[in-house]
Amino acid sequence: MEQIISYKTLLAFTENIFKKIGCSEQDAATAAEALVAADLRGIDSHGVARLSGYVRLWEAKRVNASPVIKIIHETPSTAVVDGDSGLGLVVAPFAMQVAINKAKQVGTGWVSASNSNHFGIAAHHAMMALEHDMIGITMTNASALVAPTFSIERLLGTNPVCVAIPAGNEPAFVADLATTTAANGKLEILQRKNLHAPTGWIQDKDGHASTNPHELKGGGALLPLGGDREHGSHKGYALGAIVDIFSAVLSGANYGPWVPPFPAYVPMPENQPGKGIGHFFGAMRIDAFRPANDFKLHMDQWIQRFRSAKTMPGEPRVLIPGDPEREAQADRLQNGIPLLHAVTENLKELGERFEVELKMADG
Amino acid sequence: MEQIISYKTLLAFTENIFKKIGCSEQDAATAAEALVAADLRGIDSHGVARLSGYVRLWEAKRVNASPVIKIIHETPSTAVVDGDSGLGLVVAPFAMQVAINKAKQVGTGWVSASNSNHFGIAAHHAMMALEHDMIGITMTNASALVAPTFSIERLLGTNPVCVAIPAGNEPAFVADLATTTAANGKLEILQRKNLHAPTGWIQDKDGHASTNPHELKGGGALLPLGGDREHGSHKGYALGAIVDIFSAVLSGANYGPWVPPFPAYVPMPENQPGKGIGHFFGAMRIDAFRPANDFKLHMDQWIQRFRSAKTMPGEPRVLIPGDPEREAQADRLQNGIPLLHAVTENLKELGERFEVELKMADG
Repeated sequence: MEQIISYKTLLAFTENIFKKIGCSEQDAATAAEALVAADLRGIDSHGVARLSGYVRLWEAKRVNASPVIKIIHETPSTAVVDGDSGLGLVVAPFAMQVAINKAKQVGTGWVSASNSNHFGIAAHHAMMALEHDMIGITMTNASALVAPTFSIERLLGTNPVCVAIPAGNEPAFVADLATTTAANGKLEILQRKNLHAPTGWIQDKDGHASTNPHELKGGGALLPLGGDREHGSHKGYALGAIVDIFSAVLSGANYGPWVPPFPAYVPMPENQPGKGIGHFFGAMRIDAFRPANDFKLHMDQWIQRFRSAKTMPGEPRVLIPGDPEREAQADRLQNGIPLLHAVTENLKELGERFEVELKMADG
Repeated sequence: MEQIISYKTLLAFTENIFKKIGCSEQDAATAAEALVAADLRGIDSHGVARLSGYVRLWEAKRVNASPVIKIIHETPSTAVVDGDSGLGLVVAPFAMQVAINKAKQVGTGWVSASNSNHFGIAAHHAMMALEHDMIGITMTNASALVAPTFSIERLLGTNPVCVAIPAGNEPAFVADLATTTAANGKLEILQRKNLHAPTGWIQDKDGHASTNPHELKGGGALLPLGGDREHGSHKGYALGAIVDIFSAVLSGANYGPWVPPFPAYVPMPENQPGKGIGHFFGAMRIDAFRPANDFKLHMDQWIQRFRSAKTMPGEPRVLIPGDPEREAQADRLQNGIPLLHAVTENLKELGERFEVELKMADG
């Protein structure tokens, strides 16, 4: 059962909750926009369904609602940002803006961030670059759910990468992908519905292929993109590893099995080598390579050629990365955002507790 | 049947062939080192087995043996290089050196190269960064063999990415991966041996899954990493697309279905939008983020933790990206490089034609 809520209402509600836990006006607005961007773009697993999770992290004192986010080291094209345990939803836009500012000066900007928390969807931050005629890149590590090829231990998060590339008349190319076969959010849907997972998504505690979506609770693991060695899982593992190293070993955050978990009730890993969660951001000015208009003309041709490719039987079209999310956004801006009953109940509880009204029937 | 040849002998032979087609002393040495690096690291498909292919490209006037490689645009952290139709084996080290020089100045350097040809293995160029305590990144596009998700047209190459990351006492992390389930070289091995391919590697001309490695000759295609939509092929497609755009749309090279083919007998695509093949290079100075020694200490811990992970039954160890290639190199430097009979025959023919001696029994 779903209920419809307008983007504006959901945004205002989320902003008010963030203010109630102590965020400044500006941070609350920044964080709410980042979080609700997930719901708007159809990535329901990463949006307001997690709002109470962020609040619990604040209660557990793992999130600092009034952080002083700082650049702790920099060169003309790089910086390391310390997020002061703030919401990743606030640290990430700060760090991405630093990358953009550096790109304005010297062509590109690259920022590794430590001492942060979960930042929502990678695409929201990467897309900040687009209006500046820049390519935007974001990565983050996350707590370990993924077993490297041949391992039965979970050592990597689903570690997503987003690359956003501006075009001319065509909409931007926005690829936002977890470096696993399937994102954890997709597995959660199967768990709720008690459905089997395709092979190649998960393994059991002994490393055998499994289709049971509950396997993770028994010591199983998500699999790197590729699934198994024969299908290139060593490549998905390598990509997840690169995200981990760029996000955390470059910044001084925690990496591998030491990344802090999102659920506040899960104990922190022992002997952590760094601070908080790590992210990585890049911005490349198009005209640091060639005139932006030339580039956009060719990007449009690239997109049109791929979009018009002949399809296999039963498939209406070849998609450009970002198409499904942009279409979800257009639909949801106009028609409202459908929320599962469990999610609206959860939001209402939050609203009662913090005395913030959630009006449902305004869609 | 294999014959063993020493690295030094193979290198000298290759260098002499490149000199005979008109390369300068220095370019011939650079190109030979890049090409034979593939044989040394166990990537037999990309090494001297392709030497006669490079020579045929030169005969077809698609390769310029004495190029004037130039920076045609730059900012403090970026450059675009025009390869003047040179061997990619020479253009790539030039461009990577530009990236390294920029990283020395402003922390990072990013170079997109057009008007080039195949550059051998990505790892050879990315690893140039390591001795400077930098992270090295290389990408290249290649002629279209890969169908995007839902497409029956081949629009992307196997478009590899390499990321090389220095460590302290541990050997460097070197991930070099085609953005397909399986590299074309692996398919060629199955073709020669008339073996079936695993599902998820290829599709037939109508987009149906196939295990016939000869399918590409009949209009079939290699599949992006992931294999099919259910297993994340849209992610492999997105990664291959990013490599294509960074390498070619940023530089003014050809992209998508317009990339020049490696076999000289295959006609050039019509209406090409750019020049030659494109590559992309990055160098990031570690101490542009944090002191190199702190980083290396944590990289060592990262590597040791992953290497010591508990394994699934029957698997002796979890590998770190770059392990197999480094081990092949150590073995082959000491014991020589095994070449298939067909390859040595091919080299001998080249040697006779260009009056360059190939001594086999020196291993």
